[in-house]
Amino acid sequence: MAYELYYWDGLQGRGEFVRLALEEAGAPYVDIARGSEDDGQGQSAMMALLGSKTEAQIPFAPPFLKDGDLIVPQTANILLYLGPKLGLAPESDLRYTVHGLQLTIADMVTEAHDTHHPIASGQYYEEQKAPAQARAADFLAHRLPKFMRYFERVLAQNPQGDGHLAGDSLTYADLSMFQLIEGLHYAFPRATARFGSHYPRLARLRKAVAARPNIAAYLASERRLPFNETGIFRHYPELDAKAH
Amino acid sequence: MAYELYYWDGLQGRGEFVRLALEEAGAPYVDIARGSEDDGQGQSAMMALLGSKTEAQIPFAPPFLKDGDLIVPQTANILLYLGPKLGLAPESDLRYTVHGLQLTIADMVTEAHDTHHPIASGQYYEEQKAPAQARAADFLAHRLPKFMRYFERVLAQNPQGDGHLAGDSLTYADLSMFQLIEGLHYAFPRATARFGSHYPRLARLRKAVAARPNIAAYLASERRLPFNETGIFRHYPELDAKAH
Repeated sequence: MAYELYYWDGLQGRGEFVRLALEEAGAPYVDIARGSEDDGQGQSAMMALLGSKTEAQIPFAPPFLKDGDLIVPQTANILLYLGPKLGLAPESDLRYTVHGLQLTIADMVTEAHDTHHPIASGQYYEEQKAPAQARAADFLAHRLPKFMRYFERVLAQNPQGDGHLAGDSLTYADLSMFQLIEGLHYAFPRATARFGSHYPRLARLRKAVAARPNIAAYLASERRLPFNETGIFRHYPELDAKAH
Repeated sequence: MAYELYYWDGLQGRGEFVRLALEEAGAPYVDIARGSEDDGQGQSAMMALLGSKTEAQIPFAPPFLKDGDLIVPQTANILLYLGPKLGLAPESDLRYTVHGLQLTIADMVTEAHDTHHPIASGQYYEEQKAPAQARAADFLAHRLPKFMRYFERVLAQNPQGDGHLAGDSLTYADLSMFQLIEGLHYAFPRATARFGSHYPRLARLRKAVAARPNIAAYLASERRLPFNETGIFRHYPELDAKAH
């Protein structure tokens, strides 16, 4: 039976980290609330589940995954669940290393989101532009280098080689790292202009993931939504900085 | 062998979610960098590990757990690892429900932190007081009720009874929920003054956890650090609001 992915229509958002894992593995899945596959019923089903007064496993927010009767909420949790089934996570204790990396990626994703929404996630960016500029400046000056230096070290210090974040084969954390780097380049093209010279291993990982046949086919397909200004990674030129 | 918990000295912070699980289970552990047990070597060991240029499993930040040779980073990941070993998580697929709840608690913890640090985690609160007031106001008006209504529903809709967030026995998510509610009451005493009337099941869960013998003994001990203004939950009266 196909996995059912529930996520907002029209943006990559956090759903994209799940899509990349499903696409890499060639796993059957239905993107329940996506416009091209949906006549409105998927969106309704998602909202009904979120608002259900009887369902035992209610998610706080999309994305969530349904696999038969099981509902798995939270992006990193979905990848934890899917990882071994899709061949994208080890069965050994190394799975805790992979999940720890995924949670650190998730932390950085939240911080990237908060560059344009530092005050209120329920209000428009335009209502919080001044604090957004302050937060984005701090993010680019301090947080992005701190996170990326860390991930570059993780690659450099992987005893099985610097081609993967953990172990000797591709995991969901590598796929998510690709997405994070892509998103940062979209949102902050000036600040990331010299990304490859600062973080050569991460830049190679990004290229290697993009070149994987299933990922390349996915990125070229209509299933891959473009980045836009409703997602996590938004290109507002006034929030970008010069290359460091 | 005792578990080794690595966390900053002097604050509850994210380490506290791990401590509560270890204390409830009566598991042997060493709080490596805690002042009362440390002559400075624990702190040095923690910093050496974070800065190691050879270690394969480098954490991004504390807390992290060492169990023999395995290093487990990220609070929710540590609880995922410890849960079954400590009898605080089911082995069935319900563990994904528990972990999903933990990750949603973690999201709210980050938002609680950001009420006093909305712009730059590396700067003092005093440098971001104005945006902190805006973020705290939004948090108390919108985010806290949204999260807490959700968790109250989770209890109400648990088919095994409203005494636990998932299943029919205590999990690490229940312990973390206790800590989250405690922290919110410390930080925002006015805004939470009517907490029990809005969220009666959560208030009962909070009391039930506090009354568990091992938790009660821990809370009364010197091992339980008091809340203070270096942790996640900080009481700045100017960020608090009237009870809603």
